[in-house]
Amino acid sequence: TCPLSQAVRERACAAAGPFPASHRVYLQGSRDDLRVALREIVQSPTQTPNGPRENPPLRVYDTGGPYTDPEAELDPARGIHPIRAPWIADRGTDACTQLDYARAGVTTPEMEYIALREGLSAEFVRDEVARGRAVIPANHCHPEAEPMAIGRHLKVKVNANIGNSPLSSGIPEELEKLIHAVRWGADTVMDLSTGEAIHETRAWLLRNSPVPIGTVPIYQALEKAGRPEDLTWEVFRDTLIEQAEQGVDYFTIHAGVRHGHVDLARGRLTGIVSRGGSIMAKWCSHHQAESFLYERFDEICEILARYDITVSLGDGLRPGSVADASDEAQLAELRTLGELTERAWARGVQVIIEGPGHIPMNQIEENMRLQSEACLEAPFYTLGPIVTDIAPGYDHITSAIGAAQIGWHGTAMLCYVTPKEHLGLPNADDVRTGIVTYKAAAHAADVARGHPGARDRDDALSRARYEFRWEDQFNLSLDPERARAYHDETLPKASHKEA
Amino acid sequence: TCPLSQAVRERACAAAGPFPASHRVYLQGSRDDLRVALREIVQSPTQTPNGPRENPPLRVYDTGGPYTDPEAELDPARGIHPIRAPWIADRGTDACTQLDYARAGVTTPEMEYIALREGLSAEFVRDEVARGRAVIPANHCHPEAEPMAIGRHLKVKVNANIGNSPLSSGIPEELEKLIHAVRWGADTVMDLSTGEAIHETRAWLLRNSPVPIGTVPIYQALEKAGRPEDLTWEVFRDTLIEQAEQGVDYFTIHAGVRHGHVDLARGRLTGIVSRGGSIMAKWCSHHQAESFLYERFDEICEILARYDITVSLGDGLRPGSVADASDEAQLAELRTLGELTERAWARGVQVIIEGPGHIPMNQIEENMRLQSEACLEAPFYTLGPIVTDIAPGYDHITSAIGAAQIGWHGTAMLCYVTPKEHLGLPNADDVRTGIVTYKAAAHAADVARGHPGARDRDDALSRARYEFRWEDQFNLSLDPERARAYHDETLPKASHKEA
Repeated sequence: TCPLSQAVRERACAAAGPFPASHRVYLQGSRDDLRVALREIVQSPTQTPNGPRENPPLRVYDTGGPYTDPEAELDPARGIHPIRAPWIADRGTDACTQLDYARAGVTTPEMEYIALREGLSAEFVRDEVARGRAVIPANHCHPEAEPMAIGRHLKVKVNANIGNSPLSSGIPEELEKLIHAVRWGADTVMDLSTGEAIHETRAWLLRNSPVPIGTVPIYQALEKAGRPEDLTWEVFRDTLIEQAEQGVDYFTIHAGVRHGHVDLARGRLTGIVSRGGSIMAKWCSHHQAESFLYERFDEICEILARYDITVSLGDGLRPGSVADASDEAQLAELRTLGELTERAWARGVQVIIEGPGHIPMNQIEENMRLQSEACLEAPFYTLGPIVTDIAPGYDHITSAIGAAQIGWHGTAMLCYVTPKEHLGLPNADDVRTGIVTYKAAAHAADVARGHPGARDRDDALSRARYEFRWEDQFNLSLDPERARAYHDETLPKASHKEA
Repeated sequence: TCPLSQAVRERACAAAGPFPASHRVYLQGSRDDLRVALREIVQSPTQTPNGPRENPPLRVYDTGGPYTDPEAELDPARGIHPIRAPWIADRGTDACTQLDYARAGVTTPEMEYIALREGLSAEFVRDEVARGRAVIPANHCHPEAEPMAIGRHLKVKVNANIGNSPLSSGIPEELEKLIHAVRWGADTVMDLSTGEAIHETRAWLLRNSPVPIGTVPIYQALEKAGRPEDLTWEVFRDTLIEQAEQGVDYFTIHAGVRHGHVDLARGRLTGIVSRGGSIMAKWCSHHQAESFLYERFDEICEILARYDITVSLGDGLRPGSVADASDEAQLAELRTLGELTERAWARGVQVIIEGPGHIPMNQIEENMRLQSEACLEAPFYTLGPIVTDIAPGYDHITSAIGAAQIGWHGTAMLCYVTPKEHLGLPNADDVRTGIVTYKAAAHAADVARGHPGARDRDDALSRARYEFRWEDQFNLSLDPERARAYHDETLPKASHKEA
C-alpha cells in the first residue's frame, strides 16, 4: 500500500463509526438493488408499577452511508459501493436528466429511493422535480452517491463546506472532514479546495462520498489562469468538463454577476464578499465586457445536461454584512438568476439558487418571498443567514438563528457555518459542531412547517427525558456523544442515569 | 483573612478583567454621584493611499461593573461600591417604588441613570415605568446594583441563572459564575441555589453584584419545610422577608398555578417541568386547596412594595417540550398572570411575566401576542424558547433561535440556556458560552426591531472586517478572546492580522 492510501485509511477509520443503540434497517424498493438504509434507534422500556412497558424504536434519516454502518469495511483507495451503477448502466447512452425524466412522467430509481427515504410517494417526488421545485443532484459519473433531493416540500437539507487552502490540509484531512460531515448529517458536501492537488483531492472525495458533491469550478479555473483577468471561456469550459467527468453533482456558477451590476455594489459597506462574485466582477471591469458565464450560459447548460449536473446559481453579489442586506446589487442579481433559471430549465438542467449570507431577522421572510417570486420556486439554498455581525467565533449560532427561520419560510437547503467563519479554516471538530448546529436548525424548520412526522423524534426524546431514561435521551439526540459527556461531567455515576 | 474570603478573592480576581483596547468612560448626570460607566473600544486607523484615516471609538453598554474596570481593586469580603446608597438615603423612610414615583411624575436618579445608559430621555424611561411596560428591579437593600430597566421598548436584556445544588459548588464557584456572567454581559443574574449555605451564598452574591439579583424564594422555603405538602404561608412569608432584607431585586413567584389548573396538565407529554410549578401543584393536590401564593398574593405584594422588589410571575405550567407548547394549561395560567399583574400594579409593585420554555417557531409570535394581551404589555421574560427537543448539548443554540425571534417580537428579557441544559449544572465556561450566545440573540433582536443605534456595532465590525483590521474585528466582537484564539489556530502569524 502506498503511504497516502495508508494515511487516508487510518483517518477514515478513526472518523467513522456507528451511533450508540443504533443499527441499519433497509426499505426494499421495486428493484432488488434498490434498498434504502435508515438508522433505527432502539429504546429501553419504561418502568411502570405494572412492569416494564416497551418503547418502539425510532427510525431516522441517515446520510452517513458506510460511515455509520457497523458492518462496513472501509478502503478509501477503492472507494465505497457504487449504489447507482446498475441504474446508470440500464439507462445506457440515452440517459437524460432527472428533470427530463420527471417531465416525461418517468419515475426513476433515484426518485423511488428518495420517496422511500423521506416517507413520501414516488409520484410526489417526480412531480416536484418536474415542476422545478425539487432537484436530485446526481451526476451520471458519481454512482456512489445515495439519491437525495432538495426542495421546499421535502425535509430541509444541510450542506457542509470543506476543502483545502494554500495554507493547510492534505487529502487525509479532507476525507476526514467529509466523513465527519456525513456521519453527523450533511446532506451534501461542497469541496471548495483552492490549495494543492485540487483534482486529486476531489477524486478521493467523490469516490468515497455517499452524498452529492458540489464545487465552484471558477476556483480551479483561476488556479489555472493565475489572475482573474486572464480567465477565458475555454479554460472555464475545460474545467467544467474535467470536474464533470470526475462526478461532481452540482456546480456553483456565478453567472448572475453581470457587467452592469458591478457598479451597484460600489456604495456598500462591505463591497463584494463572494469569492466567485469578486473574480467575475474583476474580469468584467478589466475587460469592460459582459461576463462570459452569462454570455455562454446556454453552452454551460448543454455540458451540465450531458452529465445531469445541477446548476447552483451563485449569489456573487450577496451582502457581506447586515448593513448591505437586500440592497439593489443583491436584488438585481436575483432577477438575473430568475432569467437564468428559465434558460437552464429549457435545456433540462436542474436548478437551485444560492442566497445570503447576512440578513437581519426582519428581512428574512421577505428575502424568501422575493426569491420564490423571481426564481419561480426553484429551491433556495442559503448560507445561514447570519443575523448580526458582532459575534465572530459564534457565527454558527448567529447564522443558525437565521437559517432556522428562512428554512421555516421555505428554503430547501441550508449551508452550514462553522465557529471559525470569518476567522480561519474549520477543522474536523468545527465541521461536527457546524453540522449538528445546522441539523438542529433544519429540524426546527421542519417542525415549524408541520412537515409530516417531523416531531416524532422530539416527542420520543421528550418522553425519555420526562421518564428519566437517560440512555435513551442520549441515544435519540443529534449528538449522543456530547450529550453523554456533558451529563457525565457533573453526574458521572450510572445511578444518576436511571432516576 | 479567613480561608473562605481568601478563596473567594482569588477566584474573583482570576475571573475579572478588562477587555482589550477598552477603557471606561463616564456620562455625568444631574448629580455629582450619578455617573454612568460605558465601555469605549478604541479602533486603529484605516490605511489609505492618502495616509491613515482615523476610525472613531465605539461606546458599548457595559454590565461588568468593577469586573471590567481596569482600575478596580476587588475585595469580595467588603463588597463592591454601593452606587445607589446616597440616593436611597436621600429618600429616607418615605421611599416608595419606582412605579409609584413614575406614576407621580417623579424622575428618580435610577431613571436618569438608565436613560443615559440606554441613550434615551429620562421622561421616556419614566413613562414606560409608569405604564408598567418597563420595570427597574432595585431593592432598597441592594445599593450595589447599577440601575437597569427591562421593557419592550428598551434594549433586549439577558439573564443568567447560577446557583449551587446539593451535588456541587461552593461560594467561590458561585461568585466566579456571577463575575463571568456580568463580565460577558448578563443584565441580571438569578441565584437558584438549592444546596448548602443558601443564605450565605446569596449574601456574597448580593454584596458583589453590579446587576439586579433574582431568586425563587419557594426553593429556600422548601429547604426549610422539607416536603412540598409541609410548606406553609408563614414559612414562605418569612423567607420572602429574609431574602428581601438581604437585597434580592426580583422574586419569581408561581402564584399562577391555581388548584384548578393542575388537572389541565395531566394529558401532557412532559407534565409539569417547572420546579416551582411542580412544588405548588403537589401542595394544591395534597391539600385539595387553592394555592397560598394565589390566596395571599396581596400580602405578598405589600411585602414587595416595602422594598421595591419586582415580582416576576413564574410560569409554573410552562411546556417542557414542543409537544406541550401553547396548550390549555399554559394559557390558563397566563390568564391568571394577567389578573395578578393588575393586583400587583394596584399596590405599586413592578411586574414582569415569565414565559416558556419550549415553543416551535411557528407559535412564537402568537405566544408573544397572547402574553401582551393577557398581561397588558407587562414585560415578558422568556426562557429561550427552545424550538426543537432533539439536540441536548446544543440547547444554548436551539433556544437562542427561539430567543432571538421572541425578542424581535417584543420580549424584554431573555433567560439564557447553557450547553448543559437538561444534562447537568453549568460551570463558569458554560456561563460564558451561554451569555455570549444570548447577547448575540438579544442584539439580533434589537437590530431586527430597528432599535436606535443597534446596528452601530455591527457596522463598525463589518467595516473592520472588510478592511482586514483584524485587531479591531476581535476587539469589537462580543468575545474578543475566542475570536482571536480561533483566528490564531489557523493563521497565527501577526502578518495575517494585517492583510
